[in-house]
Amino acid sequence: MTAAHINAMDRAAFVRTFGGVFENSPWVAEQAWMARPFADVSALHAAMCKAVRSAPQTRQLELLRAHPDLAGRAARAGRMSVSSITEQASAGLDRLTDDEYERFARLNAAYTATFGFPFIIAVRRHDKAAILGAFERRLQHSKDVEIATALDQVFEITRLRLDALVAP
Amino acid sequence: MTAAHINAMDRAAFVRTFGGVFENSPWVAEQAWMARPFADVSALHAAMCKAVRSAPQTRQLELLRAHPDLAGRAARAGRMSVSSITEQASAGLDRLTDDEYERFARLNAAYTATFGFPFIIAVRRHDKAAILGAFERRLQHSKDVEIATALDQVFEITRLRLDALVAP
Repeated sequence: MTAAHINAMDRAAFVRTFGGVFENSPWVAEQAWMARPFADVSALHAAMCKAVRSAPQTRQLELLRAHPDLAGRAARAGRMSVSSITEQASAGLDRLTDDEYERFARLNAAYTATFGFPFIIAVRRHDKAAILGAFERRLQHSKDVEIATALDQVFEITRLRLDALVAP
Repeated sequence: MTAAHINAMDRAAFVRTFGGVFENSPWVAEQAWMARPFADVSALHAAMCKAVRSAPQTRQLELLRAHPDLAGRAARAGRMSVSSITEQASAGLDRLTDDEYERFARLNAAYTATFGFPFIIAVRRHDKAAILGAFERRLQHSKDVEIATALDQVFEITRLRLDALVAP
């Protein structure tokens, strides 16, 4: 998919194509569309990130809350986006022992109780040990720092999704 | 290197072995040594991270400033730690075109002017496009958020260095 192809899309086609890049949050694509034309994928992604950064914090928190728990019940129950399923599988999070599953469940519960949204990390860039290490460390963050950190991870995840979408 | 081997080291041997894990900052290993014995590498790394997190912010900033610029003059002039050289090479930062080199130089200058320390990222977990994207985005952070983000990246980098050191 070339930049010319993307820039030729009307709003509906654009949102149909890119509305799923930010997890269950098509409003990001809707807003980014207004910044067209895009020189390249980097520019498109930058426009999407800017839409998120310019949104009120309540909206940003909704975006974070639209993500599934890592190795959580949604995965076991089959209620997860295809992107999230393949991403979590890439880090082996679909093949945990019962002990590992319990550890993730405990960390998820502590994290969500602390910050009010699920732990988000670009699992394609981390293995299981790195994910667990980051999980423990990020629990020490202040809420403001952790919101920013979680958004950064969303930006990394969506850049990888966008790249996969545009140049499959 | 087993946990038993690590736990048997006296202070001098421990600092000689692990003093370089945190860039030019052997004080991190010196403090972590007091938390021995370590059950495994994760526990050792957690103790090192805790030493950094418990340090006064001036000390944390010294740690950040002990890092070289990405694709910076230190690299061209050969004044960089072996770890940093191989890490930067893994992302192709030692093979930039003149245009790319200029872009990094501009971003480095803007970033250092804004935050007072060099841009730090776990380059082994990112390719050149991801590094540039993160560079642009992190320039938007508040100073407090960016200090926390940079420390998180230091923790990722040092975990990879520690793993490489302990199980070569």
